[in-house]
Amino acid sequence: MTQINQLTIIGTGLLGASVGLAAKQSGFAKKVAGVSRNLESAEKAASVGAIDMPFDKISDSLADADLAVIAVPLSGFDYIFSLIAPLQRPNLFITDVGSTKSSVIASAKKHLTDPTLFLGSHPMAGSEKQGPESASANLFPNKPCILTPEPDTNRNLINTVTALWQALSMNILTMTPEQHDTQTAVVSHLPHAAAALLIQTANTLGGYDVASTGFRDTTRLASSNPPMRVDIMSANRPALITALSQYRDQITNLMAILESNDRQALLDLLTLSQTSRDHWLDDSFH
Amino acid sequence: MTQINQLTIIGTGLLGASVGLAAKQSGFAKKVAGVSRNLESAEKAASVGAIDMPFDKISDSLADADLAVIAVPLSGFDYIFSLIAPLQRPNLFITDVGSTKSSVIASAKKHLTDPTLFLGSHPMAGSEKQGPESASANLFPNKPCILTPEPDTNRNLINTVTALWQALSMNILTMTPEQHDTQTAVVSHLPHAAAALLIQTANTLGGYDVASTGFRDTTRLASSNPPMRVDIMSANRPALITALSQYRDQITNLMAILESNDRQALLDLLTLSQTSRDHWLDDSFH
Repeated sequence: MTQINQLTIIGTGLLGASVGLAAKQSGFAKKVAGVSRNLESAEKAASVGAIDMPFDKISDSLADADLAVIAVPLSGFDYIFSLIAPLQRPNLFITDVGSTKSSVIASAKKHLTDPTLFLGSHPMAGSEKQGPESASANLFPNKPCILTPEPDTNRNLINTVTALWQALSMNILTMTPEQHDTQTAVVSHLPHAAAALLIQTANTLGGYDVASTGFRDTTRLASSNPPMRVDIMSANRPALITALSQYRDQITNLMAILESNDRQALLDLLTLSQTSRDHWLDDSFH
Repeated sequence: MTQINQLTIIGTGLLGASVGLAAKQSGFAKKVAGVSRNLESAEKAASVGAIDMPFDKISDSLADADLAVIAVPLSGFDYIFSLIAPLQRPNLFITDVGSTKSSVIASAKKHLTDPTLFLGSHPMAGSEKQGPESASANLFPNKPCILTPEPDTNRNLINTVTALWQALSMNILTMTPEQHDTQTAVVSHLPHAAAALLIQTANTLGGYDVASTGFRDTTRLASSNPPMRVDIMSANRPALITALSQYRDQITNLMAILESNDRQALLDLLTLSQTSRDHWLDDSFH
């Protein structure tokens, strides 16, 4: 099994701290450093055992690092890449956990001295919770993790990042940044939007008094961190607009079925939805 | 505490069997009978301890009943009420667990000899699972249960049905059938539709390979029983169309925000959604 000496987590929020915790528990990294603009956050991550060494200066945190994982909100990537650029060296690999990939890779190319030492990653592991105190190594096993290498991405970097996510028991997929952004718009960013808009609809029409577990689960993603979601939705606007447009067409189609009281068409639609979801679950969650 | 001698569950599927199980465990009913067109289903409910006495004839199951709970799909209510009508007696109270109320009450008035002995109930407790083998008394505590009495509904019937749902630790609300149908359209039937249409959108645009827990939870209701959902959506068409129309307007509004890249409006929308949901959760689930 691949093992590195030092992993550095840049941004010790829920996801960064969870990567640190899981990398330590799996034995992938002998030591894990964590850096946060706010030292308190890094110290909290250390206090829950997610990292070994808390820092508040990126230069200090990267001095002995073999691999850095950027886990800051998308709006912070330009700044982080600009801080990393003067610190780059051939044996410092860099990856991230950002929820969109085209914007991240454009930022890497713009700022880094050597962008071939950066590989885009997206572990599809999240929670509506926040902060290092909610860190959990259980976010990762059997979840998809997408890698978006470019033609000139360093080969050893790809192998090392692959080994990290494999150590966390993730299912690794490789695709282009554009494919990633199109697909996550449909199955991640659209569901976040759908959940928030169900809440807006209840705010307009009422119904909270009689709402129960179905409403709770369908709207879970509406409790996600708003500034983080603004970053993601804004970074992936074209693909999300396409997904919303298709979703709106589906709603119009269902309204027409209900207006004509076509029970057979309604049964066909709901049956196809049920079997499609159940096939996906059978394939994905074992 | 109110205790009745015999409760009869008409329709021993997941919800009916769960009511039987919880009514026994809470001590509300000394004996619980269960009747199903298919004796095997009633016997399965007996084998998991949800009922004491399985029947396949409604007349037999109601002979000694103090209270009957109708727990069949909505499309079966006309038939069930027509079978109960000749068996009605002043000391046989009747309620139901149907997901819409206007259609159920219309059916009761059409078929029953004495509709003042029927009270519409809707315990907001469900599961995407099916069958008596999944019965659970845990479906009910702290969930809303709506009663829809008419001006002439028998007072002792209202007290007895209230005592049943109180014994199951539900939060009881009283409203008109129309209020019930409008509110459940928003927080129950719309989320079911939203979940199914997210699946349809992924079927059209792709994305299953990278889908994870957010997609799984937001689409959970799409795995609900299709014929049962057709019954419910069809019975509540006008209110569901109104809810879908409002939801579609919300989508159009979000698309306009994204198209103009108005980050502040997006942040406001997502923040309001988050705080609205969290306030509701604080009020409802303790």
